[in-house]
Amino acid sequence: MNDALLIPSPTGSTRLYAVVGDPIAQVQAPTLLNQLFAERGIDALMLPVQAGAADFATVIEGLKRIGNLDGLLITVPHKLAVAAHADEQSLTVALTSSSNALRRQANGRWLADNFDGAGFVAGLRNAGRDPEGWRVALFGSGGAGNAIAVALLQAGIDRLDLFDVDRSRAARFAERLEQYWPGQVRVLDAAQPGEVELAINATPIGMQPGDPLPFDLEGLAPRTLIADIIMKPAETRLLQSAAAKGHAVQPGIHMLSSQLGLYRQFFGLDPAQ
Amino acid sequence: MNDALLIPSPTGSTRLYAVVGDPIAQVQAPTLLNQLFAERGIDALMLPVQAGAADFATVIEGLKRIGNLDGLLITVPHKLAVAAHADEQSLTVALTSSSNALRRQANGRWLADNFDGAGFVAGLRNAGRDPEGWRVALFGSGGAGNAIAVALLQAGIDRLDLFDVDRSRAARFAERLEQYWPGQVRVLDAAQPGEVELAINATPIGMQPGDPLPFDLEGLAPRTLIADIIMKPAETRLLQSAAAKGHAVQPGIHMLSSQLGLYRQFFGLDPAQ
Repeated sequence: MNDALLIPSPTGSTRLYAVVGDPIAQVQAPTLLNQLFAERGIDALMLPVQAGAADFATVIEGLKRIGNLDGLLITVPHKLAVAAHADEQSLTVALTSSSNALRRQANGRWLADNFDGAGFVAGLRNAGRDPEGWRVALFGSGGAGNAIAVALLQAGIDRLDLFDVDRSRAARFAERLEQYWPGQVRVLDAAQPGEVELAINATPIGMQPGDPLPFDLEGLAPRTLIADIIMKPAETRLLQSAAAKGHAVQPGIHMLSSQLGLYRQFFGLDPAQ
Repeated sequence: MNDALLIPSPTGSTRLYAVVGDPIAQVQAPTLLNQLFAERGIDALMLPVQAGAADFATVIEGLKRIGNLDGLLITVPHKLAVAAHADEQSLTVALTSSSNALRRQANGRWLADNFDGAGFVAGLRNAGRDPEGWRVALFGSGGAGNAIAVALLQAGIDRLDLFDVDRSRAARFAERLEQYWPGQVRVLDAAQPGEVELAINATPIGMQPGDPLPFDLEGLAPRTLIADIIMKPAETRLLQSAAAKGHAVQPGIHMLSSQLGLYRQFFGLDPAQ
């Protein structure tokens, strides 16, 4: 416990939050949010809660009934299991089936939302890059990739090109997006971005040292921004190669760090609201 | 949050404990135990958890399945509902049906115990008073009173005289004790202790300003110790009257303060073990 963050011990008036995952050892949310609570004098505590897949339903239902617990963050491997425990869900959750945040609303009903995509877009904006009107190529149609797709379309991008090695997975998701953003989504046949302002890696390719590039950097305009959602390593081979070719890059940490403010708002803990 | 106790923010390696009750605003256990954890460098956190009677079963089952949660304290109004959620129970719980502590054992099974009585006896011993061989009069056959009865018999008292305004309640409990301590337990007909070393109030009489004495102090030998389990007020009319008559007294706080070390042992957090 070097450099341990010191926070007030919880009392009967403290509002509780929990991040639920398995494993839980790596989660950053308790330290990051508890620091924020301490700095702002908010009487709240974010806990790490470890629950395996077999126990998830029982744990979630138990946590939801705790009177002084107001919200949950959900991480691997439970993001697809959350929506079944919510009374209401955001459009992002409805489209992606994936949720990473749950809160009790004033009426007592639990709302599921997903901030992976909104965190990514907030990360762009925090770096002074508003994606409105952009053309975007997105590689990887898993939970995080799909959440980013929805958030970018909600943020007003012009066109989204999707690629996944499982082409039918990308196609099924594109069909769902088509209902809300007709004519704006295409499925790519190869891991080759066309003329875009932003190309994003939302695949796990790049986590291992020997991994190839998740998509081809050849033929991209130098002004194309290259983003990766991988956080370990902080600088993937994709980002290194892109930077070497003169591209601006956005590393994965921005997606997480930009989610903190969104959680704070979602949980109603933002004094500015 | 004046004089707030500062503790390390929990991380993925922190072991969680919770005290479950309704209301929860008054609970002292989080502050007391978190202070102890902080002083000893134990990476553990005690949380206050509010759960109403209708939610208790769901909350307990959820908490039990949290992988990094090792134990629970249970307070009003749930002490009688706990045993049904345990795989095993101590003799005290079996005899009193009341439990205020639950822990996951090494084999994964949950054990229910009750430290109200053991805390009372520890309070006696911490004050240099070993009750072995004593005759004791105990007034009030509710959850706390019954737990004290079992703990005193386990501590080796010679004789226990029980009184409750609901005489049949005291009689039923005495019958159960009779199976383990034959010939040592009697039921009194009046709130009048005989010749005893210790007379205990385990009724709520004395919490309100206008309350009468819970039992008659007349005729007691001056060396009789008078104990009360009421904590608010700290000095009840019984204790004031007894002290005025020259009796040694033991206030209710000893029962709680002496339970802390027992909880620490029960939860396996005592480095001395």
